[in-house]
Amino acid sequence: MLSADCLKLAIATIPKIMSFEFQIESTSNRARAGRLITAHGEIETPVFMPVGTLASVKGVPQDTLEELGVQILLGNTYHLYLRPGVETVRELGGLHGFMSWPRAILTDSGGFQVFSLNELRKVTEEGVTFRSHLDGGAHFFSPESAIAAQIGLGADIIMAFDECTEYPADRARAQASMELTLRWAERSKKYFEEHKYEVPWKGNCQPSAPSPGGSGQVKNSHQLTRVPRPGERELAVAAAELRSAGQPGAAVPTSYGKTQALFGIVQGGMDLEMRKESALRTIDIGFPGYAIGGLSVGEPRELTREVVEATLEHLPADKPRYLMGVGTPDEIVEYARLGVDMMDCVLPTRAARHGLLFTSEGRVSIKQARYAQDQGPLDPNCGCRVCRRYSRAYLRHLYASNEVLAQVLNTIHNLSFYLDTMRRVRHSIRLGEESRFF
Amino acid sequence: MLSADCLKLAIATIPKIMSFEFQIESTSNRARAGRLITAHGEIETPVFMPVGTLASVKGVPQDTLEELGVQILLGNTYHLYLRPGVETVRELGGLHGFMSWPRAILTDSGGFQVFSLNELRKVTEEGVTFRSHLDGGAHFFSPESAIAAQIGLGADIIMAFDECTEYPADRARAQASMELTLRWAERSKKYFEEHKYEVPWKGNCQPSAPSPGGSGQVKNSHQLTRVPRPGERELAVAAAELRSAGQPGAAVPTSYGKTQALFGIVQGGMDLEMRKESALRTIDIGFPGYAIGGLSVGEPRELTREVVEATLEHLPADKPRYLMGVGTPDEIVEYARLGVDMMDCVLPTRAARHGLLFTSEGRVSIKQARYAQDQGPLDPNCGCRVCRRYSRAYLRHLYASNEVLAQVLNTIHNLSFYLDTMRRVRHSIRLGEESRFF
Repeated sequence: MLSADCLKLAIATIPKIMSFEFQIESTSNRARAGRLITAHGEIETPVFMPVGTLASVKGVPQDTLEELGVQILLGNTYHLYLRPGVETVRELGGLHGFMSWPRAILTDSGGFQVFSLNELRKVTEEGVTFRSHLDGGAHFFSPESAIAAQIGLGADIIMAFDECTEYPADRARAQASMELTLRWAERSKKYFEEHKYEVPWKGNCQPSAPSPGGSGQVKNSHQLTRVPRPGERELAVAAAELRSAGQPGAAVPTSYGKTQALFGIVQGGMDLEMRKESALRTIDIGFPGYAIGGLSVGEPRELTREVVEATLEHLPADKPRYLMGVGTPDEIVEYARLGVDMMDCVLPTRAARHGLLFTSEGRVSIKQARYAQDQGPLDPNCGCRVCRRYSRAYLRHLYASNEVLAQVLNTIHNLSFYLDTMRRVRHSIRLGEESRFF
Repeated sequence: MLSADCLKLAIATIPKIMSFEFQIESTSNRARAGRLITAHGEIETPVFMPVGTLASVKGVPQDTLEELGVQILLGNTYHLYLRPGVETVRELGGLHGFMSWPRAILTDSGGFQVFSLNELRKVTEEGVTFRSHLDGGAHFFSPESAIAAQIGLGADIIMAFDECTEYPADRARAQASMELTLRWAERSKKYFEEHKYEVPWKGNCQPSAPSPGGSGQVKNSHQLTRVPRPGERELAVAAAELRSAGQPGAAVPTSYGKTQALFGIVQGGMDLEMRKESALRTIDIGFPGYAIGGLSVGEPRELTREVVEATLEHLPADKPRYLMGVGTPDEIVEYARLGVDMMDCVLPTRAARHGLLFTSEGRVSIKQARYAQDQGPLDPNCGCRVCRRYSRAYLRHLYASNEVLAQVLNTIHNLSFYLDTMRRVRHSIRLGEESRFF
């Protein structure tokens, strides 16, 4: 057996890999371009995160997502908790191993789905009782159990359990809801700090190289959870020995000390003062990133923008800002301009399934008969594999004939359009204010 | 204007590209390995042809089919005639241009679908009146109109219009049906010979290089129908001038003289003598390839095999033999052994959509709970992109959750398994009779 000093030396030589870091590299007025560094790779910001509700971006294989340059995916805790269940995902090494996605993942807290998919939910101080939209079975989420679920799912970024305040809500209701979310944020953080080393990553979570347009395909990636890196097993054993000996270094887990990053969520309804209070008190609790929740819940877009703008003022400049659940291509550009770093929305993927396609020339409803003999590409300014290869006539035929390939190709294009849009936004920020987007 | 002699000289310098050719390169007992040479590329035989009913192999993008090494696809004339319609496909340069598939295509005659999807069809000497399974509208196929449709669709190999005799059928019925199919075969050939230069290929139909596993992706392939090859327009004009002048060379079309290949179909029910007669009389009419039709219509497999074996005896050794509508992985190996060169079946793609997967270890019904935490690949002996990347647990989750990606990935694997099986069969034939398949 090696001596404790020798083991400490060995551990000290492990390259320091940050669990989570945010670097701002360029600003243009209020907009910022930078990068998030997570346990599973870097993400250029501002970023749009495609939604992979059930560990799949509906219809699109993971290698295609890699080719599109997707650097981070969103998974829905509520859905994954119901199917396939947290334990199954944990057993397979978390979402990364389960779905064979080596790049970064974010999971939401489940709060929004409990709110939006459950007419019969019951909220108490302790948490929320809700019914499964699948079979009506009763379930309970508390801040502790929601964080436990997210640790089991093993995303790189996870979210504090919040109550998504409904719209409209009167002042007293919005205040009470905000206070509850703040108390839950404290409990979320406490639980996370006590359990963060239980994340099921198994050794192989060094950053992959996200090369937009490149072929980051992992071969045999179900081995992610089975084959340790050279020396990993030895170091894990060493760390375990240090732990069992009560030595310093006891906190070194098999994943080299990397943990998830827990973000806080600002609520406060549509009241700007209450948003400010929610922001400041959430910052007091202290998180490595902050989300703006409770928007896109039915309020007019002008009001969304106003609340976003007012909330952003109070968020720390050096931490990532995540606006949940937006938006259209115009909106994601607009919010990036206001200083938002991360966004997600089902719009590009859901619209694709309904034949609504976003292009540089505006929206195309591909089901229309006018495209039946249109030999041109969907978007002449788009270089995605769909626009490079297929005509509008063919895409229209697939949609009209209810062919599954319609959903596959439409989703690929819409995601490509969103990702290209954000790529141009980042480029514009780096070029400065004269650029075309700002 | 150029002189007629000059034009003839120019045309004579066009490299001679065969419209259709079949070369046998190796035999092992009754099995043959060879290649079909079509206007859109070469096909190694024996070949299994995936079914792309509506100009799409359900859920699988064309570039993925190329990567799988698909060298020829099957389209269904009946379905394509109804949706999107022959004129639309013709306008876009035939199926190759329409679906952006540069490799070979075969269309069936529509006879089988008229037979299997229409309870109310009415057969006369002239043709078949049937109702659309989509809207109940009345339609009519004759040998002439079925061939006209197939010329418009522009597949490389097309099929004579036949009556698929039902099973069981008594001797008189089978005889009458066979005689009708023979008369229709003559009419099919006559119409084809008179109209074969109307195929809508536009210049760009030189053989693509089908490289199994390579990236044969076509960029901007909707330009197939728009951008002539250098000199093509001039030569087309020249040929048209020769035609209008009544000169020899008048038969040179804009596709450099390449035409489709029309195959005959042997019928005759389950009576071996009648099968022989049908074969000999179809051969008398004369086709570049012969199909065995009227099987896989509900008869026992042993009977199928018996009829196939008896029919093959009477087909010319130097022409391709196409067994329509079979089969399981075992069956395609067995029929290749008997000397069949081409097969097609919806089984791999349809079974995939129902979660039934073919593997080297037998059939896997991926929906079963036993796979819920199975970290292994679907088939440890398969190198397809599905088996390389995803676990059985993930595939089971996608299927159980009704995710569209289940269909996409399952179909890719099953096709890969069929294509690999045929690849091994071809290899075995080339190695000779000691090899493992025979």
